[in-house]
Amino acid sequence: MTLILNSQDVKQAINLRTIIDQIEKGLVEEYNGHTENPPRLNMRTGNDGFYRIMSAVMNESGYQGFKVFFKGGPSVRYLIGIINQQTNDLEAMMDSAYITAVRTGATTGLATKYLAREDAKTIGLIGSGLEGRTNLEAVCAVRKIDSAKVFSPTPARREAFAIEMSEKLGIKIEAVDTPEKAVEGVDIINVCTNTSTKGNNVAFQGKWVSPGVHVNSIGSTMPLMREIDTDTFAKADGIVIDTKHLEEESGDVIEAIKEGKYDASIVTVLPALVTGHKVRTSENQVTLFKSVGTAIQDIMAARAVYEEAKKLNIGTDVGEFLESKLFN
Amino acid sequence: MTLILNSQDVKQAINLRTIIDQIEKGLVEEYNGHTENPPRLNMRTGNDGFYRIMSAVMNESGYQGFKVFFKGGPSVRYLIGIINQQTNDLEAMMDSAYITAVRTGATTGLATKYLAREDAKTIGLIGSGLEGRTNLEAVCAVRKIDSAKVFSPTPARREAFAIEMSEKLGIKIEAVDTPEKAVEGVDIINVCTNTSTKGNNVAFQGKWVSPGVHVNSIGSTMPLMREIDTDTFAKADGIVIDTKHLEEESGDVIEAIKEGKYDASIVTVLPALVTGHKVRTSENQVTLFKSVGTAIQDIMAARAVYEEAKKLNIGTDVGEFLESKLFN
Repeated sequence: MTLILNSQDVKQAINLRTIIDQIEKGLVEEYNGHTENPPRLNMRTGNDGFYRIMSAVMNESGYQGFKVFFKGGPSVRYLIGIINQQTNDLEAMMDSAYITAVRTGATTGLATKYLAREDAKTIGLIGSGLEGRTNLEAVCAVRKIDSAKVFSPTPARREAFAIEMSEKLGIKIEAVDTPEKAVEGVDIINVCTNTSTKGNNVAFQGKWVSPGVHVNSIGSTMPLMREIDTDTFAKADGIVIDTKHLEEESGDVIEAIKEGKYDASIVTVLPALVTGHKVRTSENQVTLFKSVGTAIQDIMAARAVYEEAKKLNIGTDVGEFLESKLFN
Repeated sequence: MTLILNSQDVKQAINLRTIIDQIEKGLVEEYNGHTENPPRLNMRTGNDGFYRIMSAVMNESGYQGFKVFFKGGPSVRYLIGIINQQTNDLEAMMDSAYITAVRTGATTGLATKYLAREDAKTIGLIGSGLEGRTNLEAVCAVRKIDSAKVFSPTPARREAFAIEMSEKLGIKIEAVDTPEKAVEGVDIINVCTNTSTKGNNVAFQGKWVSPGVHVNSIGSTMPLMREIDTDTFAKADGIVIDTKHLEEESGDVIEAIKEGKYDASIVTVLPALVTGHKVRTSENQVTLFKSVGTAIQDIMAARAVYEEAKKLNIGTDVGEFLESKLFN
């Protein structure tokens, strides 16, 4: 059978802790060489659009899946499908606009767990959108955060964020009117913007980095998108990336490489970090986690959502709509 | 909204003539450079499986789509999704085991329309499976076939094929006990086998080819699969392939290239054939159509099925299950 989960179903079945754990499990599997994660297919389309297909095979978990991300005019949509290798069933297809934001947060949480100082208590946020929310929540799941400051250009949006997330997470959150104020004196910094392709304005500068801080940056996911300046890379003592593909996909990294500020000798991939590779070796070091997202993160998150949806008995069962043929 | 079509819905909504026309339209679009058809993603999976994702963008038709083909243990399944570029909707997801067989037939029909002699009346068939059926039916849609002979190794299967298809198509069909008898003296030959990866036995040999014949071969779709021998390529005066990717994907072609029997100077791609490139220039020439299938054929066929399903009011509407987000 195939279970169809719409955006409401997915929101109901999200459990951030489980998703963080499942992604970690997937990354260990990746590190052990039991996954396939081919480069994504990127296509241009008519109607000012693009169209991206990602895929991952998880042979230890016994799952594989695909993610389709498509834009036409101003609209973007995301679909994930997951396949059980044992039964060869397409078990679920689900909306993944929200999953994408949550798995990005969960991955940031995971990186933060291994990179931030153990005693980190304060966080500075640049960006007050959906990713700003999910990334903050995930950091709060791995460190005892007691206060945050948030900046984004529109006062009403950053203020709404502060009220909403303070209530949700039970921490003090202050909306501030410059990015410098948001990041001054904090232990962890989350840069989660959608500056898109409009100009080269970066939202965060390396000169604002103080010793001991950990920085997460998740918003530069295409070559034309920027978020942090190249000095941020130069300031880091250790850099963790979620996938090597990012070196061709993230505008921030492409630019840092071009300017010679991306020191490959201090770069570790996330699967190595979660399996024991030490990156932070002292309290005063600066660490940077840079992420574009991978299908492995998506599929592991989607599978956690599917398992939870089954428990909650939600979604639309469309039966065994794909015929099984014998292959000889 | 998204319409889910199961295998029964799809069978009900298949209209071979429309599918042939739609595939031709897609190929013209491909020839005009208004499509994207990236190489397929091929992955190995656990449970003795494989997993393939194909994608096509049709900017003239205003559609794009994906096909997911997965095998685990003895089971294979096929899924196609189609996306309307204008509305950015995932309009349908459908079982495509049967569509795959029908679009393969339809593509063979299209090639035959441009390659076989105008007065072709007889056909020889090697293979009596589902593809044998759909490919015969499509040839009958483009030429006035009055009789056929069919060979496959199991007597009961070839006899059942002869009875069933004779009734369905209103032509005389004789089941014969050797492949040579099936192809002797006929105008068109369809080789539609599933010899799979078991040994190197080919089902058809070039020495059986007589002047003026047109041969269709659709069964060697992976490097390890064989169907026709390399002499068949050497015997041809003109070869048409559905995609250049086939030169790395079809075991038959890989082997013919290796043995120097694949003369690239007489090879034409199907999109060029349907837009006016002449291949057969005399009655006595031998032509060969070699096909592995493309996502463009799949998506155009699936779209025709979707349009027909809407008219028939069949399928399961799961609503707008993918949330539309604003992209700025």
